[in-house]
Amino acid sequence: MTTLFNNQTVIAEPVLAVIAHMPTASLPVLMGDDFSRRLSDADFMRIAALLAQKSYDEGGCPIGAVIVDNESGRIVGKGHNTLVQENHPYNHGETAAIRDAGRIDFGRTTLFTSLSPCEICAALVHMRGFARVVVGDVTNASGTEPLLRARGVRVDILEDKRAIELYARFRTEKPDLDREDWIGAGAVGRPVGSSQS
Amino acid sequence: MTTLFNNQTVIAEPVLAVIAHMPTASLPVLMGDDFSRRLSDADFMRIAALLAQKSYDEGGCPIGAVIVDNESGRIVGKGHNTLVQENHPYNHGETAAIRDAGRIDFGRTTLFTSLSPCEICAALVHMRGFARVVVGDVTNASGTEPLLRARGVRVDILEDKRAIELYARFRTEKPDLDREDWIGAGAVGRPVGSSQS
Repeated sequence: MTTLFNNQTVIAEPVLAVIAHMPTASLPVLMGDDFSRRLSDADFMRIAALLAQKSYDEGGCPIGAVIVDNESGRIVGKGHNTLVQENHPYNHGETAAIRDAGRIDFGRTTLFTSLSPCEICAALVHMRGFARVVVGDVTNASGTEPLLRARGVRVDILEDKRAIELYARFRTEKPDLDREDWIGAGAVGRPVGSSQS
Repeated sequence: MTTLFNNQTVIAEPVLAVIAHMPTASLPVLMGDDFSRRLSDADFMRIAALLAQKSYDEGGCPIGAVIVDNESGRIVGKGHNTLVQENHPYNHGETAAIRDAGRIDFGRTTLFTSLSPCEICAALVHMRGFARVVVGDVTNASGTEPLLRARGVRVDILEDKRAIELYARFRTEKPDLDREDWIGAGAVGRPVGSSQS
């Protein structure tokens, strides 16, 4: 099949933005494996960061993630935090991408996350046997990398300057949302049941 | 409002089954706070076990959970494992109930789970600041209870005989599903992307 990106020689931001926003199951209409293999780690991280930007633009927490099959280079899952968008008390970038990927063998994949994983996501990552995690921001948060390495996950840091700037801006603009996203609504005095009123 | 269960004097299995299956937001058509306050810990655990039974009947993993507001006795969230039903690689009983509850202060609630929490759910439980967890089965699985206690969560064991029997039967009937639910599809040789074909 001839796909839109077949003859794309420069992998520019608008191309990565289209990949970020396209549903994962529909990615084959954009690109084949030849194109996927030309995407670099920095490109995948940019896609995760563009998913973070999408969430920010929706009024949510700017954290995104992408899961790539190590052999084919295909994107098999992606997503972003939906604390605000889905009223979801723990759906971070990583959990969103893993949910999107479904029941696959994560041991043959790499997870790109725009922000250092929290403890919940770190437990999920090692329990689902990821081969490798690439972290785009250890400036605004960090701490689970040693745990992941101790559990046999390869962890690489590949900071994305704009992802770091975006998260820092969000934290300044909405400190309560940032705090709730890490340690729950109790931390910001939200009463039981208030989300349902 | 007069509700269906207002004059219910005996809290029998069919009553608990209706509570288990009714969407959380619709529970007020069944019962008011007077009735909720008459439910015992064993009743809440039975509701979690009936959610596990629902999942089993759907061909899924039999694990259920219920979240109760400590002050009012109201059920504020509930759910069951959806590995099979939603092609969801980590939605356990606890994560399902927490997702159902939404953005509330879990520090004022108790989580009833029909099976001992896995490492992911244990991390989620202490990161979301639950006051108390009641575990209905430490026979088929256990291990995170000391971690939870060390993180300040009160953990009580209240085994439900039929929940234990149901999980043991499931494990005998579908050992691969049991294994995938705990440590991922890689453990049972599922290839990358196979869930999407």
